[in-house]
Amino acid sequence: MSFSPLFEQLIASFCCLPGVGPKSAQRMAFYLLLRHRDAGLQLAQTMIEAMTKIGQCSRCRILSEQELCHYCASTKRNDAQLLIVETPADVLAIEETQCYSGRYFVLLGHLSPITGVGPEQLGFDLLQQLLATGKVREVIMATNPTMEGEATAFYIADLIRKIPHNIAI
Amino acid sequence: MSFSPLFEQLIASFCCLPGVGPKSAQRMAFYLLLRHRDAGLQLAQTMIEAMTKIGQCSRCRILSEQELCHYCASTKRNDAQLLIVETPADVLAIEETQCYSGRYFVLLGHLSPITGVGPEQLGFDLLQQLLATGKVREVIMATNPTMEGEATAFYIADLIRKIPHNIAI
Repeated sequence: MSFSPLFEQLIASFCCLPGVGPKSAQRMAFYLLLRHRDAGLQLAQTMIEAMTKIGQCSRCRILSEQELCHYCASTKRNDAQLLIVETPADVLAIEETQCYSGRYFVLLGHLSPITGVGPEQLGFDLLQQLLATGKVREVIMATNPTMEGEATAFYIADLIRKIPHNIAI
Repeated sequence: MSFSPLFEQLIASFCCLPGVGPKSAQRMAFYLLLRHRDAGLQLAQTMIEAMTKIGQCSRCRILSEQELCHYCASTKRNDAQLLIVETPADVLAIEETQCYSGRYFVLLGHLSPITGVGPEQLGFDLLQQLLATGKVREVIMATNPTMEGEATAFYIADLIRKIPHNIAI
């Protein structure tokens, strides 16, 4: 039992963050309460805003509080190239290289029959709509080099071959 | 520029936490947004409650949302012993040892003329009131073994010697 139940509760809540154990949580709680309450309140407000407002881009499925994300809304990107990744973090990693200027599609996972993740959960209907527009001339698969990632890439390649106009994979 | 301004803002806010850099902040943001929004909202609510409700115990100056903290409110602790520490973290460390059952007094810092921390900021008036009650028979100094910590301990010892009734230091 600590000196304050609310302080205990704050530490327990910080432990929900990845990589944060009881010791780091205690350090965070002391740091904010003793010296940076304004920053703590600011973080809390931003978290609430983000958790309630950020949804998915209606075109590429990445996280976005707008109908279209920054990349999809841009008119400077190449519509003919589509890069398919598993997570938004993959998009950030590729953007950091500054070597790609096409469009993205984010699966938010990979096919996994065991855990019940099928084509519906990965937005394959949205992907098919996107490919059917005929703008995309080349699809680049960048799913993870795991068994599930490879299987997902194969499945998507199969899907693309069924589309009447020619798309390079 | 990332895919969403609000996402960028969330990452920047997480960076205000001690030990959290841009990479950890990004991991936290993805973790909450993609899989644990409820936990994120819960943490934000707890933070707001803690930042606004937690004040100081009116007796020992530790963090507390009540008038008296858990330790000061307890009737099972020994009123004759008073342990003086610099931070609430010191109290937690001593409590973990389970070797001490007296009362605490938390300075929330140490004397530091250069940064303008004087006796007023460390609650010396409150400490004198506490000692004047005559209940305390023994004071244990547990300030940090730094130059400032030692100087603070000497200053307090001097203060105690001026009190009419006998207190062991």
